[in-house]
Amino acid sequence: MKLVRIGVLGCGNVGAEFVALAKSQQAAIETRAGVRLEVAAVAVNDPKKHRNVQLAAGVLTNDAMAVVGDPAIDLIVEVIGGIEPARELIATALRNGKPVVTGNKELLASFGSELFAAADAAGVDLLFEAAVAGGIPIVRALRESLLGEPIKRVLGIINGTTNFILTRMTEDGADYADALAEAQALGYAERDPTADVEGYDAGAKAAIIATIAFGKSVVADDVYHEGISAISAAEIAMAKRLGYVVKLLGIAEVTPAGAVGVRVHPTMVPFHHPLASVRDSYNAVFVEGAAVGSLMFYGRGAGGLPTASAVLGDVVDAAINLSRSTHGSLGTFERPTKLSIDDTSSEYLLSLDVADRPGVLHAVTGVFARHNVSIRIAEQEGLGPDARLVFITHVALESEVQATVRDLRDLDVVRSVGGLLRVIGE
Amino acid sequence: MKLVRIGVLGCGNVGAEFVALAKSQQAAIETRAGVRLEVAAVAVNDPKKHRNVQLAAGVLTNDAMAVVGDPAIDLIVEVIGGIEPARELIATALRNGKPVVTGNKELLASFGSELFAAADAAGVDLLFEAAVAGGIPIVRALRESLLGEPIKRVLGIINGTTNFILTRMTEDGADYADALAEAQALGYAERDPTADVEGYDAGAKAAIIATIAFGKSVVADDVYHEGISAISAAEIAMAKRLGYVVKLLGIAEVTPAGAVGVRVHPTMVPFHHPLASVRDSYNAVFVEGAAVGSLMFYGRGAGGLPTASAVLGDVVDAAINLSRSTHGSLGTFERPTKLSIDDTSSEYLLSLDVADRPGVLHAVTGVFARHNVSIRIAEQEGLGPDARLVFITHVALESEVQATVRDLRDLDVVRSVGGLLRVIGE
Repeated sequence: MKLVRIGVLGCGNVGAEFVALAKSQQAAIETRAGVRLEVAAVAVNDPKKHRNVQLAAGVLTNDAMAVVGDPAIDLIVEVIGGIEPARELIATALRNGKPVVTGNKELLASFGSELFAAADAAGVDLLFEAAVAGGIPIVRALRESLLGEPIKRVLGIINGTTNFILTRMTEDGADYADALAEAQALGYAERDPTADVEGYDAGAKAAIIATIAFGKSVVADDVYHEGISAISAAEIAMAKRLGYVVKLLGIAEVTPAGAVGVRVHPTMVPFHHPLASVRDSYNAVFVEGAAVGSLMFYGRGAGGLPTASAVLGDVVDAAINLSRSTHGSLGTFERPTKLSIDDTSSEYLLSLDVADRPGVLHAVTGVFARHNVSIRIAEQEGLGPDARLVFITHVALESEVQATVRDLRDLDVVRSVGGLLRVIGE
Repeated sequence: MKLVRIGVLGCGNVGAEFVALAKSQQAAIETRAGVRLEVAAVAVNDPKKHRNVQLAAGVLTNDAMAVVGDPAIDLIVEVIGGIEPARELIATALRNGKPVVTGNKELLASFGSELFAAADAAGVDLLFEAAVAGGIPIVRALRESLLGEPIKRVLGIINGTTNFILTRMTEDGADYADALAEAQALGYAERDPTADVEGYDAGAKAAIIATIAFGKSVVADDVYHEGISAISAAEIAMAKRLGYVVKLLGIAEVTPAGAVGVRVHPTMVPFHHPLASVRDSYNAVFVEGAAVGSLMFYGRGAGGLPTASAVLGDVVDAAINLSRSTHGSLGTFERPTKLSIDDTSSEYLLSLDVADRPGVLHAVTGVFARHNVSIRIAEQEGLGPDARLVFITHVALESEVQATVRDLRDLDVVRSVGGLLRVIGE
């Protein structure tokens, strides 16, 4: 029986749950996997603060660099988060021949390629299931099960905070501010919610998804972002009336020519689409493959215990590989040609407040026609002296739709152009 | 670059799609996985019937046994189906040191343990993603990602034919016979639909799921079955009125003491449960883990191309392992203590037609009370001189509910007891 001694860097929510879970599952893992896991070191800033975590004497330390350098440690779990010192600790561990399991999306979304290459050079595993969508095993599915699949697009609800807020707005008619306050009260949202609500957290995960789905090096800086803070209860109600629910999606797609585009924005999802029924703080990743068709992976995208479960799955995998003197590899990734948001296509919803007088609809639709944007659904309702026009277009090019919006704003009969929402088909 | 020469046994729908997909994805797989896949032999009963499959001269053969014995073949893909000759061919291939990829649920559900042991003894891979839920990568998730997870229960919509029929009954109010006829016309159901509608196909897949989820050897014969052929449009409408959709679920569960129960039966699923939105011929597997919480895997459970995608994923995995001189292992599985259907618990729906006269409800509820079956919801509606009573119980023991039904049938005020439907909670 191979004994694998684990050094854990960080002992917050995920780290503490991992230590407990590895212990409670130790016997089952021995039986099923033929490896014995032992948490031999846990590095934290202040060991005095972690007296409640049940650890043998001498396991807790404040010297993370000593842990990654310790020849008695076989495998490193990094759950500190952030760029430094995680980056240097992981690089050192890999250089010392230790496989690393991490849930650090921020680090991987910026320096993934560098770390994958370091793992390959050292001939050890670098596994990161917990970095994307918490407990959902989407990373392994993309790395292994779907490595031979011609994936065309991945759509993900990969931020639980914004999905909770949008669910409250959809189901209870809540305003954004009230739904955010509820999410903060429940601990789903930070006091400064920017990283979640403006789509940066989802963007980092989408960059990692694009990298492993398409085999190209995509970083967080490549991702186009629009958040949910400008979405109104009225827009959500309008979408609902038209048969859609608004979700913040991370979208990674590749064109037939190999250009890769990654973006995060609010999206109208038809009621019957599987992503539409993903509620509250749950996450889901929807994969569109040319051969396999549609796949969806659903579960808890955050939380100490689900994330610890993902970490443990990776640790078991790396431990089995250690016992067989082998390791997985992601290969080396080149930078892709970038698909600009301007060159993407989808259906769009636009709402305009206009003067209610003869010829307005004719003038407005003329702008659409001039930019080759074809209208699929048009609705008009009266608002006193004004009228509101709502359009859903057929599939159109982003740049043409943006040009349409600019020209509509220049029409003197148009009072305002409401938020532009992209629509995914059934 | 490791060249891996593949022998394919069988060239029906899945086999032909696999051969085409392996060819079209060859270059991408070389780049991503560092292995070169080549279909070097395809064994069929009658080579003349397969002239339309594009293969190099000499690849098509009618001698499957020669393929599994050929030292020039590195890896076997078995897509013949059925017990023999698949069982002997796979055993021979493994003995000859060749990894095997199969989608043969019937074989694995009866002789899985024997074949897993043979693969282990030979030190080669036996992979079978395509045997459960077609293109959905649930086997790898259970084998690898969730190997350290304390899984409590797995609920699967793992038969597309019955899910299509139930969807038509739910959404269009169709009768069972009409929905079956539509499924047959669309090619979703066989002329003899028994294996699908009576739950045998789902039962074989549930046995495989239980085996890899709990690490115990469960076979098709262990599975309790109830099919959907007795379900009426009225029952489905009643379930819908109460907030449920009826699904044929394969259920695998383990008790805290380690007893394993596997059953297939129609089940009432609350509208908000993720399984409720799995429509038409789609499949989904819902995993309940003590640490990871709820996970769901959704996709195409059948069809040549999705199934071929799952086969190709396994082939890439086995080929990478060959190139590294390693292999995966399931270990050896013991038979579990069996959890009888009588000892399972759930909520139940019962409907009774009774005489509409004083004291009936009192007599009926007395039977429930005598067997410790507590009532959560009770409804009564008039039907001329009779009345219909509908009950949903709190969680109760199957044996007590069955005893309740027997005693209810003996009451002279009870005209009939309608189908018993088990209910899963939110």
